[in-house]
Amino acid sequence: MTEKPGITPWEVSNELKETDYDRIANEFGAKLIDGQMISRIKKIAGEVHPFLTHRIFFSHRDLDIALDSYEKGNKFYLYTGRGPSGEMHLGHLLPFVFTKWLQDRFDVDLIVQITDDEKYLFRDVNERDLEKYTKQNILDILSVGFRPEKTHVLVDTHHSGLLYNQAIKVSKHITASSVKAVFGFSDSDNIGKYFFTSMQSVPAFIMSVLKGRNVRCMIPYAIDQDPHFKLSRDVLPKLGYYKPSSIISKFIPSLKGGGKMSSSDRTTGIYLDDDPKTVRRKLMKYAFSGGRDTAEEQRKYGANPDIDFAFNVYRMLEPDIGKTSRVYEDYRSGKMLSGEMKGLAADMINEFLARIQSQREIVEKDYDSYMFDPSKLQ
Amino acid sequence: MTEKPGITPWEVSNELKETDYDRIANEFGAKLIDGQMISRIKKIAGEVHPFLTHRIFFSHRDLDIALDSYEKGNKFYLYTGRGPSGEMHLGHLLPFVFTKWLQDRFDVDLIVQITDDEKYLFRDVNERDLEKYTKQNILDILSVGFRPEKTHVLVDTHHSGLLYNQAIKVSKHITASSVKAVFGFSDSDNIGKYFFTSMQSVPAFIMSVLKGRNVRCMIPYAIDQDPHFKLSRDVLPKLGYYKPSSIISKFIPSLKGGGKMSSSDRTTGIYLDDDPKTVRRKLMKYAFSGGRDTAEEQRKYGANPDIDFAFNVYRMLEPDIGKTSRVYEDYRSGKMLSGEMKGLAADMINEFLARIQSQREIVEKDYDSYMFDPSKLQ
Repeated sequence: MTEKPGITPWEVSNELKETDYDRIANEFGAKLIDGQMISRIKKIAGEVHPFLTHRIFFSHRDLDIALDSYEKGNKFYLYTGRGPSGEMHLGHLLPFVFTKWLQDRFDVDLIVQITDDEKYLFRDVNERDLEKYTKQNILDILSVGFRPEKTHVLVDTHHSGLLYNQAIKVSKHITASSVKAVFGFSDSDNIGKYFFTSMQSVPAFIMSVLKGRNVRCMIPYAIDQDPHFKLSRDVLPKLGYYKPSSIISKFIPSLKGGGKMSSSDRTTGIYLDDDPKTVRRKLMKYAFSGGRDTAEEQRKYGANPDIDFAFNVYRMLEPDIGKTSRVYEDYRSGKMLSGEMKGLAADMINEFLARIQSQREIVEKDYDSYMFDPSKLQ
Repeated sequence: MTEKPGITPWEVSNELKETDYDRIANEFGAKLIDGQMISRIKKIAGEVHPFLTHRIFFSHRDLDIALDSYEKGNKFYLYTGRGPSGEMHLGHLLPFVFTKWLQDRFDVDLIVQITDDEKYLFRDVNERDLEKYTKQNILDILSVGFRPEKTHVLVDTHHSGLLYNQAIKVSKHITASSVKAVFGFSDSDNIGKYFFTSMQSVPAFIMSVLKGRNVRCMIPYAIDQDPHFKLSRDVLPKLGYYKPSSIISKFIPSLKGGGKMSSSDRTTGIYLDDDPKTVRRKLMKYAFSGGRDTAEEQRKYGANPDIDFAFNVYRMLEPDIGKTSRVYEDYRSGKMLSGEMKGLAADMINEFLARIQSQREIVEKDYDSYMFDPSKLQ
């Protein structure tokens, strides 16, 4: 029996510490994004995003190669995705904010893969719910503001013809041993699960297939997806395509603390349709705090902002790094109380959600035009 | 380690004796087609086909249930298939002759699945050859004379959208253990192979999906395909569909004797484009004979027609059972020599091939109209 790996897309430890991430990235063979890399991105992008500064996206594979190539005039395309198993909350959506930034700054195409087949195979869900969440999640994702003409949504069961024909090519190079080792499967897992990673590989080279020339792909993803793309990186060169580059994030902390927000309990996350009052109430009531038990202690000893949900979300949404530093300092020193920190975060979140909610109405009208359509690619 | 099963779709013993078939059918849990069943088919069909009389199609699963239902006015549909790994020879085509007879006599729809994905996953073939053989094989199969309006060709990579979305439902109910046990896979086999049986299951219930009501399916196949459909029969009821019925054949003997004709060596089979001279020459030169070494011995001791290639093919193509019995007796008794038997078979085969070759030109013009099209089903 193989030992189960610590992080797979379907089994995630809820108690990852900051230091664990560097260790895991290292074990996975990914590189850390260092100051030099951040400077390089800043030079090309014209600015740097808080997700990089704060090391939310902290690791990468061959990002340097993608940037080398980009600087020579060869654009990569972005590929990211979502398994539509339930409603999206803030933690699910925030990584897409960074992806949008990448799309805007690098002026590139984006494929968003919705793995409804995966959710069907790995979870106890019915088809009707899957369809509902698929549509809902796509609208939520698009509401982040991706560019309509450069954004292509691939839904596995809608685009299964296109995907399966390429997926079998990937699958021919992956043994049952590999998926057992990488995902921790056993003989009692179903054969759809065994095959699935092949479907998730396809968007990493589909542009090359359709354009008839090799195009680089860059994949922003959370670290639990790394096993998939490690396999993709092994297989794609065998099919004549580039290894995809990647930019890898930590988990977005959940409202109640811990590694990954759950979508089964509505009090563990801030939902995208929560109104401002609900957001404020959830933060006040449930948000995991790095502050002290009493205002007096807080004034005296200060908080630990690093583990504080409100601060963590605040820093992701605040583009002004100087401002974030001041908040960090005030909170850490005890000048700012937990309630104030939560209030600040609530304002930030509510402003963000208001944008999402108004944008959602616009993208809903154009929903179909975002669907991946090979005939529309140049 | 699980012990490898004796017959799987990809590993076939070449030395099966007549008695082995009954044993294998029994081990697989299939029933033998007895005289009573043949009478029943004759009653409904109005005649009986030599493939039944001579026990080429010798076994079944739930054929009685399909006939019960048919007699109450509920038609089944037929489903059969072919993996397009090379040119088709006579041995490949003959089972389709029986399927055509079933289609005509029962007046039913037929799905022909071309599993090009399977051949890609299991063999070392390139895409161009696969495409070539796919088209060629389809034309060969259609040349048997299937009814255009009731015949639907499903090509896995052309219809992959339709198939994959249903295949994942099947795959959710099949574990890696099962496919290891049934097909003899190991951990070093690729994950495409693991998944593939799900794709082969789909045509057994796709009519029910598309028509929105349960329709029975009857599958004529050679016994090496039984592991696939045994799994289908386990899974389909879990998805709310009928278990498929089946009618199971032995292997068509190869020119040189043995269980299954190979498509890699052109001298092991009679090809569909062989001209009459070539057919005669191949029979005379290569055909495995049940006759004696010399004419003198043959006159004295007689032949063993049961293992004789020429006789075996002759009896499949000769509709008149009485005639076949006389030939059998003459050959067995020594009244007829090997050369005469081969000459008789050559005439029969050449007549059959002439029909196929002329029919092929007609179906080639209507090729597209045979393709499976959900919108055309009533």
